Amino acid sequence: MIVNNSLDEVKKRESAFRIIKKILEEKGRDSLFDVTGLSGGFIASKKELELLETYVGPAVFEDEIQIVGKEHLGGEKVLPVNRTSAGILATVLALVGEGSHVAHFLADYPGHPSIPRSCALAGASYEEFIDINEFAIPDNTSLVVITGSTMDLQVIDEDLFTQVISRAHEKDIPVLVDDASGARLRTAVFNQKRATDLGADLVVTSTDKLMPGPRGGLMAGRAELIDEIKIKVNQFGLEAQPPLIMAMINGIKAYTPEVLRKSVSRKEEFYGLISKKYEMFEKTPNGIKVQEANLANQLKVLNIETELSEKDCCFLWSMVLLKEEGIITIPAVGMPGASDTIRFDLSTKDVIDMDLDVLQDKIDNSFDVFLDLVQKVEMAEKLIFFDE
Amino acid sequence: MIVNNSLDEVKKRESAFRIIKKILEEKGRDSLFDVTGLSGGFIASKKELELLETYVGPAVFEDEIQIVGKEHLGGEKVLPVNRTSAGILATVLALVGEGSHVAHFLADYPGHPSIPRSCALAGASYEEFIDINEFAIPDNTSLVVITGSTMDLQVIDEDLFTQVISRAHEKDIPVLVDDASGARLRTAVFNQKRATDLGADLVVTSTDKLMPGPRGGLMAGRAELIDEIKIKVNQFGLEAQPPLIMAMINGIKAYTPEVLRKSVSRKEEFYGLISKKYEMFEKTPNGIKVQEANLANQLKVLNIETELSEKDCCFLWSMVLLKEEGIITIPAVGMPGASDTIRFDLSTKDVIDMDLDVLQDKIDNSFDVFLDLVQKVEMAEKLIFFDE
Repeated sequence: MIVNNSLDEVKKRESAFRIIKKILEEKGRDSLFDVTGLSGGFIASKKELELLETYVGPAVFEDEIQIVGKEHLGGEKVLPVNRTSAGILATVLALVGEGSHVAHFLADYPGHPSIPRSCALAGASYEEFIDINEFAIPDNTSLVVITGSTMDLQVIDEDLFTQVISRAHEKDIPVLVDDASGARLRTAVFNQKRATDLGADLVVTSTDKLMPGPRGGLMAGRAELIDEIKIKVNQFGLEAQPPLIMAMINGIKAYTPEVLRKSVSRKEEFYGLISKKYEMFEKTPNGIKVQEANLANQLKVLNIETELSEKDCCFLWSMVLLKEEGIITIPAVGMPGASDTIRFDLSTKDVIDMDLDVLQDKIDNSFDVFLDLVQKVEMAEKLIFFDE
Repeated sequence: MIVNNSLDEVKKRESAFRIIKKILEEKGRDSLFDVTGLSGGFIASKKELELLETYVGPAVFEDEIQIVGKEHLGGEKVLPVNRTSAGILATVLALVGEGSHVAHFLADYPGHPSIPRSCALAGASYEEFIDINEFAIPDNTSLVVITGSTMDLQVIDEDLFTQVISRAHEKDIPVLVDDASGARLRTAVFNQKRATDLGADLVVTSTDKLMPGPRGGLMAGRAELIDEIKIKVNQFGLEAQPPLIMAMINGIKAYTPEVLRKSVSRKEEFYGLISKKYEMFEKTPNGIKVQEANLANQLKVLNIETELSEKDCCFLWSMVLLKEEGIITIPAVGMPGASDTIRFDLSTKDVIDMDLDVLQDKIDNSFDVFLDLVQKVEMAEKLIFFDE
């Protein structure tokens, strides 16, 4: 075993940073390809950066996010928050009274944990439903939540979506849609309408998911409800700060449904290509991945023996991908305890326009080097704890 | 009454932003003078901004804030949060159980509203003390809070500070210091020690107060407690995002106690000048202020009658200062529940080098307009809820 504990993982991560720094200095940013899909965007002009002062920036950016945000999400008013979870907390604190109930409909279990956690904080009961025939709204319900697309990107059926909204509105209960990635996945790929156009009173989306914005949340909906939520947001420090709002505006402006649709069709194409050669790949909604066990199995198929653990194999290949090809994946740069699954998100700006044959070449080359190193434990260890 | 509740305060704040935007567009940034003392900054190099785009940036900044933050605040571990209020909420959610008690010692009433609000959310009782002889820590106390310097910048006596900590520690109760501006005011101007050096278990400071950082909060303290708080921070989306962390690092690096001290001597000079004409001004550690009651008294001295409440008078003058002279004070742009004291912080970069006679002219002009409007309720309301 090379990477044995958290301290080793920290060392591995630092080693990945040294390699990234080396590539940045020697070859430049163009030779790095971040496919983690977790980096978040931060598009900013020089003029905008000068405006970023506590009480001047907001005046400009809060105005513009109203226009840009309403175009993206619909609704009467927009509210930028520090994260989708923060927006959900504020909504629950504003609308869900102690002893009331929250009913949540979604395509598949589980809902995002911030929803039941916020309900518990408010002293409200909470129930999740994935079957419309079982969906129940007791009389003490104060809020109905719909998840547009789950954490694993499973999308809700649009008919069920409108049915749930009708049922809630019959009882005059407001509907919040957790449309973290759904605001784009549902509309761009599944041709569904925006949540507010389907009648939702409130919607919240994550500005870093499937769009080039910063980590953050953007709410929209009925002005009267947004105003109530905004009070809680301001009271507890949940609002997005000016630098984030600025980057949200630019992220939304830079987002195009075409790019998202393109990454979905490119994923299919790339999966088709790469599966001819390897058994280890699986699809994700907008890319491909190799899990620990599948990587180990691929080695068996190739009759290659190694003293390395399955986890070490993931770390090693991830470091080879970085050092040889400049491809940044989570096992190389992740915090201790992060997943060791090697994911290639094809919607990130570094690879969205890359020729798929070129990408496959890079993966092939790195995999050949990996197959060699996997049998040379000392050299593998040297790479994982890279120090020039 | 014009501003009656939190919703009105939100609308008033939005109205101030519209005026700021109008001045920016019509006259430019040089015609705005932010004397809130909250006008932090967003210092960023081109290289750092490029790093924000990749997975590398966040990782690098999170490492660096540990080093820079510990130098500024002491403690074993640092935790950057979206706002001081968000850090207080997370601390209360992590450490304060339902049915327990929070005791808060401060130089003068009231404590920041986020503290009692967070306690109410956790189902805990809460009491504030300004007299050490009355300070009580019942047996069910789960947290003791000390405010280093109040919203109106009244600083706690260092002896009382350590007494409160000793009393809490005798009962094994952790102490959180709300050192929003105090972390700098207490140390640079009052020669006090850092909160952690005085024995506090936790401290939180605002990175935009009396330093050129972004709006945000920085916590430090015992690693074991910080880890518990970090869980709540991540669960509810309260953490500072990478662009904020980057600007916090640069803000702390750019902070110099000397600038803060210079503003102290300018304050003495300006107070001497302006007190010849008005009775309402009082000194703050780095500027001057007018409190609600003193503004009302000034009106009486001038024999001017008004139907407006004392609070509305503060909001009105603050809006006139903004609209007529471009002077940004907290009552105009503050969050709901913020102090309605009109403070002129002389250490902000917009006025640190301004001729004091020019500043007095601006204050005189705005006050004349205010004296007129205070007798015309409808026009006053129109200005407070300004909408072209």
